[in-house]
Amino acid sequence: MSYRCEQLTEEKVFKDPVHRYIHVRYKVIWDLIGTKEFQRLRRIKQLGTSYLTFHGAEHSRFNHSLGVYELVRRITENFTGRDAWSEDQRLLALAASLLHDLGHGPFSHSFEKVFDLDHENYTKAIILGDTEVNAILRKVADTFPEEVAAVINKSHEDQLVVSLISSQIDADRMDYLLRDAYFTGVSYGQFDLERLLRVMRPKKEQVVIKQTGMHAVEDYILSRYQMHWQVYFHPVSRSAEVILSRILHRVKELYQSGYHFKQTPDHFLSFFKGDVTLTDYVQLDETIVMFYFQQWMEETDFILSDLCDRFVNRRLFKFVSHHIDFDAKDWQMLYGAFESVGLDPTYYLVEDSTSDLPYDFYRPGESNERVPIYLLTPDDELIELSRLSTIVDAISGKTRSDHKLFYPRDMIERLPDSEAKNQIISLLKMTGRTGKNII
Amino acid sequence: MSYRCEQLTEEKVFKDPVHRYIHVRYKVIWDLIGTKEFQRLRRIKQLGTSYLTFHGAEHSRFNHSLGVYELVRRITENFTGRDAWSEDQRLLALAASLLHDLGHGPFSHSFEKVFDLDHENYTKAIILGDTEVNAILRKVADTFPEEVAAVINKSHEDQLVVSLISSQIDADRMDYLLRDAYFTGVSYGQFDLERLLRVMRPKKEQVVIKQTGMHAVEDYILSRYQMHWQVYFHPVSRSAEVILSRILHRVKELYQSGYHFKQTPDHFLSFFKGDVTLTDYVQLDETIVMFYFQQWMEETDFILSDLCDRFVNRRLFKFVSHHIDFDAKDWQMLYGAFESVGLDPTYYLVEDSTSDLPYDFYRPGESNERVPIYLLTPDDELIELSRLSTIVDAISGKTRSDHKLFYPRDMIERLPDSEAKNQIISLLKMTGRTGKNII
Amino acid sequence: MSYRCEQLTEEKVFKDPVHRYIHVRYKVIWDLIGTKEFQRLRRIKQLGTSYLTFHGAEHSRFNHSLGVYELVRRITENFTGRDAWSEDQRLLALAASLLHDLGHGPFSHSFEKVFDLDHENYTKAIILGDTEVNAILRKVADTFPEEVAAVINKSHEDQLVVSLISSQIDADRMDYLLRDAYFTGVSYGQFDLERLLRVMRPKKEQVVIKQTGMHAVEDYILSRYQMHWQVYFHPVSRSAEVILSRILHRVKELYQSGYHFKQTPDHFLSFFKGDVTLTDYVQLDETIVMFYFQQWMEETDFILSDLCDRFVNRRLFKFVSHHIDFDAKDWQMLYGAFESVGLDPTYYLVEDSTSDLPYDFYRPGESNERVPIYLLTPDDELIELSRLSTIVDAISGKTRSDHKLFYPRDMIERLPDSEAKNQIISLLKMTGRTGKNII
Amino acid sequence: MSYRCEQLTEEKVFKDPVHRYIHVRYKVIWDLIGTKEFQRLRRIKQLGTSYLTFHGAEHSRFNHSLGVYELVRRITENFTGRDAWSEDQRLLALAASLLHDLGHGPFSHSFEKVFDLDHENYTKAIILGDTEVNAILRKVADTFPEEVAAVINKSHEDQLVVSLISSQIDADRMDYLLRDAYFTGVSYGQFDLERLLRVMRPKKEQVVIKQTGMHAVEDYILSRYQMHWQVYFHPVSRSAEVILSRILHRVKELYQSGYHFKQTPDHFLSFFKGDVTLTDYVQLDETIVMFYFQQWMEETDFILSDLCDRFVNRRLFKFVSHHIDFDAKDWQMLYGAFESVGLDPTYYLVEDSTSDLPYDFYRPGESNERVPIYLLTPDDELIELSRLSTIVDAISGKTRSDHKLFYPRDMIERLPDSEAKNQIISLLKMTGRTGKNII
Repeated sequence: MSYRCEQLTEEKVFKDPVHRYIHVRYKVIWDLIGTKEFQRLRRIKQLGTSYLTFHGAEHSRFNHSLGVYELVRRITENFTGRDAWSEDQRLLALAASLLHDLGHGPFSHSFEKVFDLDHENYTKAIILGDTEVNAILRKVADTFPEEVAAVINKSHEDQLVVSLISSQIDADRMDYLLRDAYFTGVSYGQFDLERLLRVMRPKKEQVVIKQTGMHAVEDYILSRYQMHWQVYFHPVSRSAEVILSRILHRVKELYQSGYHFKQTPDHFLSFFKGDVTLTDYVQLDETIVMFYFQQWMEETDFILSDLCDRFVNRRLFKFVSHHIDFDAKDWQMLYGAFESVGLDPTYYLVEDSTSDLPYDFYRPGESNERVPIYLLTPDDELIELSRLSTIVDAISGKTRSDHKLFYPRDMIERLPDSEAKNQIISLLKMTGRTGKNII
Repeated sequence: MSYRCEQLTEEKVFKDPVHRYIHVRYKVIWDLIGTKEFQRLRRIKQLGTSYLTFHGAEHSRFNHSLGVYELVRRITENFTGRDAWSEDQRLLALAASLLHDLGHGPFSHSFEKVFDLDHENYTKAIILGDTEVNAILRKVADTFPEEVAAVINKSHEDQLVVSLISSQIDADRMDYLLRDAYFTGVSYGQFDLERLLRVMRPKKEQVVIKQTGMHAVEDYILSRYQMHWQVYFHPVSRSAEVILSRILHRVKELYQSGYHFKQTPDHFLSFFKGDVTLTDYVQLDETIVMFYFQQWMEETDFILSDLCDRFVNRRLFKFVSHHIDFDAKDWQMLYGAFESVGLDPTYYLVEDSTSDLPYDFYRPGESNERVPIYLLTPDDELIELSRLSTIVDAISGKTRSDHKLFYPRDMIERLPDSEAKNQIISLLKMTGRTGKNII
Repeated sequence: MSYRCEQLTEEKVFKDPVHRYIHVRYKVIWDLIGTKEFQRLRRIKQLGTSYLTFHGAEHSRFNHSLGVYELVRRITENFTGRDAWSEDQRLLALAASLLHDLGHGPFSHSFEKVFDLDHENYTKAIILGDTEVNAILRKVADTFPEEVAAVINKSHEDQLVVSLISSQIDADRMDYLLRDAYFTGVSYGQFDLERLLRVMRPKKEQVVIKQTGMHAVEDYILSRYQMHWQVYFHPVSRSAEVILSRILHRVKELYQSGYHFKQTPDHFLSFFKGDVTLTDYVQLDETIVMFYFQQWMEETDFILSDLCDRFVNRRLFKFVSHHIDFDAKDWQMLYGAFESVGLDPTYYLVEDSTSDLPYDFYRPGESNERVPIYLLTPDDELIELSRLSTIVDAISGKTRSDHKLFYPRDMIERLPDSEAKNQIISLLKMTGRTGKNII
Repeated sequence: MSYRCEQLTEEKVFKDPVHRYIHVRYKVIWDLIGTKEFQRLRRIKQLGTSYLTFHGAEHSRFNHSLGVYELVRRITENFTGRDAWSEDQRLLALAASLLHDLGHGPFSHSFEKVFDLDHENYTKAIILGDTEVNAILRKVADTFPEEVAAVINKSHEDQLVVSLISSQIDADRMDYLLRDAYFTGVSYGQFDLERLLRVMRPKKEQVVIKQTGMHAVEDYILSRYQMHWQVYFHPVSRSAEVILSRILHRVKELYQSGYHFKQTPDHFLSFFKGDVTLTDYVQLDETIVMFYFQQWMEETDFILSDLCDRFVNRRLFKFVSHHIDFDAKDWQMLYGAFESVGLDPTYYLVEDSTSDLPYDFYRPGESNERVPIYLLTPDDELIELSRLSTIVDAISGKTRSDHKLFYPRDMIERLPDSEAKNQIISLLKMTGRTGKNII
């Protein structure tokens, strides 16, 4: 081993409801877990707004990060002694797996979109910057922080290590499917982890799967598909996400228009201005954001106050499915009708689309090229998964999408009778599936 | 049914990882869940500081409250059609079970001690005050809020309904044992819920258990015993609790001594002054508290800043067991040694005791009289549990206690060598169990 | 209710590892379970030879029958009060679900093929014949036995009741997937039963599924697909099945050729002769068959003795996949080579094929027309599943097959070197996948 | 390693519902599993007659034996590299754990009592005799069979290895509690296996438990206690056991009195005569016994035929608790009344007692001296468990007993009214708990 790598005198464990125990033998791992940058992940929920649909989903990214680490530990335990695998690679994989989500901010997806940020850059910045994490990584080797960042960034030349954390069948996905299923209480995320761990093999370019484990891989891919549609894209969670995103838009807009806040939103200023420092970034976790949302419920701006009340007290928007036969003219009319009753459609009539590609293989030249999953035959050949699996072939490369229109049913209900109100109701009915009450 | 009680047109459910689904048929229950006072429970963790020991324990009181409701729903489903049981009682029990924790504040136990508050009073105040909860309860009957409050308060004349929520074998305890076991990942909280539900019977004064279910009750009592010592009193969680309590003490002390805070802790002022309104109280949840703790890390007062850093970044105190042969003189010496090296013992040398009474029966005249658990024989007689169960008899009325001394090992390690340092180490060694490193 | 239907004074339960408890309220159900014809199902394994691959799979058809009953009980509990559903239908469905497997013989599939029997006829015969089951059913109504038999036989005019037990999503399949997964220990059979139960609705012709439950149905269909290939068609179980079938062939052949058995196989005589009475049939369970197999290990006929030893002591045949490019001439050569080394290919070179159709919809005019699964839209329309589900559409109507060639590797290994031996090895290699050892 | 010990080229696994997988690396273990003596354990149920109470309990001793092996494998995996532990010890422990139940006969307890046999002697005989097991063990070392037999027999000088399989906290008990809980579906047998495995340490004389694992040990002991009373001593299973024992008595008695059997019970003759050879013994498994029971239902002797019908078709005896205040005179009267109505009390009025000692420590000079469980303190001292555990101390050494009287309620019901009938009913009422119907 070329890395400096101290072992703990006795193995330490964390009790984990998904993997029973998280086992730690390397001191560097133990020390990384103790850093303030890693502890911060306790204050960021793994599933963002999903807890408003599935009340059990209150688990944090801290949880998940330990889980990914544990899975990489177990996968690579089986690699020991095989060709194409060294202890140095193992330590690199373990550190990268633990830290792969380090840069996530509060309610990442909406936040990043509104403020034009990228959590992957912040992960890198924390690893390479003047941080506790960086200091600990450097004890292993001067180049270790760069190596870990490169693995997370997928740019490391050791694509085998990269594939453990970022591929179509990586420890990240395996942990979150199992963990999110556990905490939400749904059964869809289950797959045969034990079997998968037994059939993973290291090859030069990536982890591959022994052919005898094909059915376990199918099961895993179908679990992912089900979790996307049953949990991750659940329309109630999307509704909360839509409101969250509108809050951030509104507050940014107010700031830029010179609105006077009752209390200055100090933690947000650099985000509004677009000059966020690493310190600003890591200070903003979900406890801070929720503090402000509760403050903003008292602001004089009605839209900001209303949206924050909706998010904090779970008074979400309702939705209708958005069909394609709802054309531009209809849309314009609906938009107009909202305006005419005094509901700003920018904030109260929101389109939201989700789509998912359950599995894909490499299509040269296309954007989003994906490394396929390979099966390893008894003859030591590699065959791309969808060539052997009927089910995976059937769904391979097929994107599934869903479009919804979110609106505040309670507000429309309370409107006095008017032509505009009737128009809103009938236009919403037209776009949505029939037979369901709009108000 | 004398109450006004609307049913939902279709049953609604919440997915719950512990009970699979939470089923709601009564509109009043659905509406109560939607109030802002009930939604607030999402921002208060069920197990306070335990998530710093068991990272899965991030679940909220919102979760648990739904669970207690569901258990009362299932227990009373079996009561339907039996003597001594009406639909009115059922609705009362359901509402009370849902709301029984409504007045909990952030990190309740420490908070209440430092600021001399009682969450039970606040539960009552929210139910009877000018709140969304009160308005919904009043729709059932004018007296309904008072009745619900009386049940939670144990003062209601219907002791059968009271016993469903507050007794030695109530839905509250049954849910939290199972739920806390689920989220922490320990197996100790398991017991045979299905069997217990089948053997519970309503009697005039309380719920009793068919004698054939005695082993299921034993199992439940032993689960409670195990959960107390394995989870609830875990010394690492106690360490976090100790720090939390010291933070609140310090900040109150600073305020009272006229300390100038960089930013005024608005949410805390009425708590410092002792003139807390209901509005002040319900505004203070754990996201707010965590916001301030993070702010206070930047305060100039070293003790406040250090303790907040310890809590936020999980840099906890270590501990030694506190043996009784450590006498007053030893204690004075240790106290003095801490002072002489500049560590204020009020904040950095903290005693903490925990004790538990696994089961007890009524001992007239004693304080804390407890209603015992009764078994119902085939002849319809009631016999107190410990008279039939060897195991329960063995542990009945026996308090078990544990005393620990918490201190910042890191700080003592960093002290320059001195006689005082040596004295601290040897005195800590003397009180603690031998063979363990003090620093 | 037009049936005579007594209730038990108190509900009775059976502890069940899959459904927690089996609940019985109707006396007729309780009495049916106590009949000797139903108790006989304890002596017939649910999964035949699978216990030789998955050692946990030792559960009986008695287990499964109770499970199917319990599922129908739970499904129809939700039907109560809905249109198109009466209590009479419920009792009919419950009795039919409990008894649907009553006519199964030992190791049914092989047994029926060799002796040209059909367990469905025997189920009917037991229900309509002079049996304890018949006497109990008749207490409900004179026509009740015929009705129950007609439901099991799928010929009953109430196709809704039929569909509960025999359709592409019936209680039979739901129970066996969950139960077989539980006892084998594989995770593939899991699906969200609770959700499915919540979305099943009675329609005139069959049970349909609310559209919101589509993903739960997908999950169920994929579970079935996985269980077929991972468990039911496992090649090691097939090997045992092949041997079993050869034993029965051999013993029948010996009998017909006038072979003198050391001890007359009394229980089998009518099967050999083809004049099986109902009494003969129900006497033959798996304990009897295993008794004879152990007896026959001592017979002088080498083939019978060897095959019985293989089955009893689990010395199974090995296998190679049988590719289509292995033509008639190759086959003839292999056959000849077996003969030339003294291994009768009728018994020692056995082809076995399995195939599965995961889901299909009605194709008029085709054999095996299948009733499709219908989804019920919010507008009360019925839409066939594969029209809405991408995944089900992808696998719908697609048969997957597997062909294998079984042979006794140990015997071939022990052959002295010879050209025939070499030829056997090279021909087996040619048909099988390369890279695997033939001997 | 002084033993000859070949490793498999690739690890083999068995899917196991309790431990997920059983892992095999040593060729000797693989070969032992393949012997006919070990495969025979598939035909002997782990829980004897319990499947007649808990229908899931159809699992065999084959299952359990693999499970004990797997637990010893996991425990000793953690021992590797510690003092007082060698690879030779490991192989010895693994082989002994796999084979520890090898000599069990059908429905062991009743069988052994009636025919005066001891399965431990047969385990030894199979290991040391001319068997496939012996041949395989001898390949490891000439003395290996003797060593394995000595470990199972508890006479081996290496008491540490002995304690892994035979002590108050051994792999045998740990597996059967978990496994029997899994297959019956009760929750009582659960304890924290993972934690126990982490805290077991090898000491010269026995396995001890790190003090930090005390609560896990308590949990295990209480699980055992609960399983005894909830499952193993369940009165319905006892009823079946009573009938089984009476069948064997009757058939032996008939044989000895020269009764002419319709078909000679060949497999039983040497048992009747008391000259059982090893071959006779291993031939008699539960499929054979069930064959004869079904045959004997057709015998002319009413008692034998009736008892066999009861066992095969589960028409069990009912029971009353047998109180101590039921004196000898009452007993004589009851006995006489049975005789006077023509029910032979030897077969139709059977007393049965069960008792259990949940935990005990060494009391010198007493019979049944037991090796206590020791906790290992941080100072490396050993302290007997009940000195530190309040709960274990409370139940330590306390035997709990239960006495019941079994009788055929159906027969008594059918008796014509008579004084003797009334007397039977009132005497049974007197002994049993009041309030329960005798007939």
